[in-house]
Amino acid sequence: MRAAQTSGVRAQTRRGRPGYDSSEVLEIAVRLFIEKGYDATSVADLAERLGLTKSAVYHHFESKEQLLGLALDEALTGLESALENALANARSAPESFADVIRGAVTVLIERQPYVTLLLRVRGNSPVEHAALERRRLFDTRVTEVVRTAQSQGLVRDDIDAAVATRLIFGMINSLTEWYRPGGTIDADAMAETVLATAMSGLQVR
Amino acid sequence: MRAAQTSGVRAQTRRGRPGYDSSEVLEIAVRLFIEKGYDATSVADLAERLGLTKSAVYHHFESKEQLLGLALDEALTGLESALENALANARSAPESFADVIRGAVTVLIERQPYVTLLLRVRGNSPVEHAALERRRLFDTRVTEVVRTAQSQGLVRDDIDAAVATRLIFGMINSLTEWYRPGGTIDADAMAETVLATAMSGLQVR
Repeated sequence: MRAAQTSGVRAQTRRGRPGYDSSEVLEIAVRLFIEKGYDATSVADLAERLGLTKSAVYHHFESKEQLLGLALDEALTGLESALENALANARSAPESFADVIRGAVTVLIERQPYVTLLLRVRGNSPVEHAALERRRLFDTRVTEVVRTAQSQGLVRDDIDAAVATRLIFGMINSLTEWYRPGGTIDADAMAETVLATAMSGLQVR
Repeated sequence: MRAAQTSGVRAQTRRGRPGYDSSEVLEIAVRLFIEKGYDATSVADLAERLGLTKSAVYHHFESKEQLLGLALDEALTGLESALENALANARSAPESFADVIRGAVTVLIERQPYVTLLLRVRGNSPVEHAALERRRLFDTRVTEVVRTAQSQGLVRDDIDAAVATRLIFGMINSLTEWYRPGGTIDADAMAETVLATAMSGLQVR
């Protein structure tokens, strides 16, 4: 994962200025957007955080919006790939849904800052609007998996498929708020915990 | 509920200016904070939205931070009352937990803008810091209810009580993002849906 590989790395360029590659600039920009809010962050703020001039930042990126677009794409591509893999590999609709849950938890943990940013997007610009559209399409496709599992009698059908999908993704998305990497529960264990809660609930039978 | 009662109401005062009572100013401020972000909203922005002068806004409230404090208190008092009621009425720990879930869903729906604001607080000021502390205390007390239910063998204990609490509140809190009042599912039905998902999961047995 890009963010993990480049975290904190700060090479020196030939010309002796602090040097970053584009993925490092993106990662630092995303952290700043989360901290201050995207709208409240200027390219000057980012330049200051990086210790670069504004024109040096523009050497890497055309605009603040381009950075946002790349960050949101990082999150969305991860979620979409998780869904594609689940649909490609699984043998039944409930297995697909289980794989979507596992895959989404992994993406949330591995790309936490990017997904955090995605979850805060309100559609205030074309880039944000496009990201919300992709997120909606993802939700619709997952809901379809749940609906198929219901029609096969494998998932309870007294809960609307769209509501069930949103509740389960409410659990998953909450990881951006409270999950801290390096703790006692790694990504795989957390994926199994979320899956167990979603499919079997907390009650002892 | 204050917000529902005063929604859109805009009385005329004796002096012919648009008149608001303090709870209306609070409600409109909260919607603006959600729209623009609290940090990015000035008292001048609020005055403009209300069609009042800044000094007329200061007639109602001392500061932007006082408005934030009242809004967060509205959310936290609701959640704390739900917990108190659950503990006072229920006969066993799993029943308390079920009542906490029902109560929290109701508060989220009835005080949606206030809870939305609470969930976005990052602790950037004393008021926000105090709200985060109250939220943490609430989480700790709910976790204790889950832990007691686990020790009684009534809730599965292969999932850490704090993790289970956070996942279930992830589901509940997601309602601020997607639940729209006046749709096909009212607050009571949504509370039962969340409870069923949390306790029994989606899988058919």
